[in-house]
Amino acid sequence: MNTDKLSIIPKITLLGAGPGDPDLLTLKGVKALQTADVVLYDALIDETLLDFAPSAAIKIYVGKRSGEHAFEQDAINRLMVDYALNYGHVVRLKGGDPFVFGRGYEELDFADSYSVPVTVIPGISSSIGVPGLQQIPVTHRGMSESFWVITGTTSGGQLSADIAQAATSNATVVILMGLKKLPEIVELFKAAGKADLPAAVVQNGSSANEKLIVGTVKNIVEQAQKEQVQAPALLIFGEVVSLHPSFKSLIKPYASIA
Amino acid sequence: MNTDKLSIIPKITLLGAGPGDPDLLTLKGVKALQTADVVLYDALIDETLLDFAPSAAIKIYVGKRSGEHAFEQDAINRLMVDYALNYGHVVRLKGGDPFVFGRGYEELDFADSYSVPVTVIPGISSSIGVPGLQQIPVTHRGMSESFWVITGTTSGGQLSADIAQAATSNATVVILMGLKKLPEIVELFKAAGKADLPAAVVQNGSSANEKLIVGTVKNIVEQAQKEQVQAPALLIFGEVVSLHPSFKSLIKPYASIA
Repeated sequence: MNTDKLSIIPKITLLGAGPGDPDLLTLKGVKALQTADVVLYDALIDETLLDFAPSAAIKIYVGKRSGEHAFEQDAINRLMVDYALNYGHVVRLKGGDPFVFGRGYEELDFADSYSVPVTVIPGISSSIGVPGLQQIPVTHRGMSESFWVITGTTSGGQLSADIAQAATSNATVVILMGLKKLPEIVELFKAAGKADLPAAVVQNGSSANEKLIVGTVKNIVEQAQKEQVQAPALLIFGEVVSLHPSFKSLIKPYASIA
Repeated sequence: MNTDKLSIIPKITLLGAGPGDPDLLTLKGVKALQTADVVLYDALIDETLLDFAPSAAIKIYVGKRSGEHAFEQDAINRLMVDYALNYGHVVRLKGGDPFVFGRGYEELDFADSYSVPVTVIPGISSSIGVPGLQQIPVTHRGMSESFWVITGTTSGGQLSADIAQAATSNATVVILMGLKKLPEIVELFKAAGKADLPAAVVQNGSSANEKLIVGTVKNIVEQAQKEQVQAPALLIFGEVVSLHPSFKSLIKPYASIA
């Protein structure tokens, strides 16, 4: 840790830690942490990642979880710049990728306004990585030529208008932070004539306590309730969900009777 | 390398290497390479990544580039399974993420048909990471609540129908492998009344020779031609491109005259 204020060179690294499994951090991320004077880390960050930072580095939890808002975004922005000016290299360790609904650009913009240089290190976004770890490909030849990633919780709290349009598209649709609004979202897919479209909900993606629910638009709400799925969870709508082995067993419930 | 055939346990790891910069490999990827008996790697893979594999491991280039097709997908599938059955752990090292237009699921499916177990390790997809490294966020509050990632080159060679729909949406639109079709793509955005939408082309994203072109739907083809942009390149359409510093200077071409 740099304590000689005259020699302090403030800088900030916005670092994406990936979806949860600490081994999904990049080598570039490890190197950034190794030179950190301060680490500001979110909820959902595996704390073993902090061990890559020098033991003398200051480590501060600034997590906000839906409903709690332990730290407001403004407070995080200010903390980040204050620490950079006073201690040097601040690593802002964020879940997933900094720019996928991570409010990373707001942090970059705030740092810019104080002329503190920012480096961005992408992380594995759960939008791609969590389906992938479940061996559900977001794209697959002859099945899906695109995928559309949408937030389930907009800044205003309402459902994003993009979801209604996505429901009418041929894209694989991945929705983050949408579990609470699953019943509303499902209605949009039904209205688009897609009651039989395969759908999945993944809770705690990439972590040891990961849970996968597979079904169709018609029954996914019931399935998720039955299995008591909780946030954080990711929603997947698309034919590609049918490639998951548990989907095949689902549509042939009596096939295993010998 | 395992040479005692009786003790061979075949397995395959589909490993995403990220967009180009070798430091964007994950720790989980490093660990997989360290136990590889065979590495089958693509074009666009930085060969320094092969150094993580044991020196005795077999390393085979199976790259196909647009137009060349050095290896057909069927040949790669067979090679992958043959090596797993004969040598043990095959790491299939792929650019970006294995399931983002990487034909990863075809490889998984083929391995499945031979009962060779497959592990998937996600990689940083260039669709998110390349804009991010340029400090262009694919999402930003009040500007973009979603992003839509589409291939510019479908299996049939024509333009994906998804692009026309994406052009009418509010999503940030990211198109991979679409440079050759940029003039056609731009027409779709113009037809949707978006001639003034900010647009960017990034060549060799995340590599030392990265090149960024910024403009609008109206002039991006001309800009890309003037700068002689070549594949591999990624296209970004959306208001978020306006956040890039070079866009600000673009729309005020005379502002710097002192």
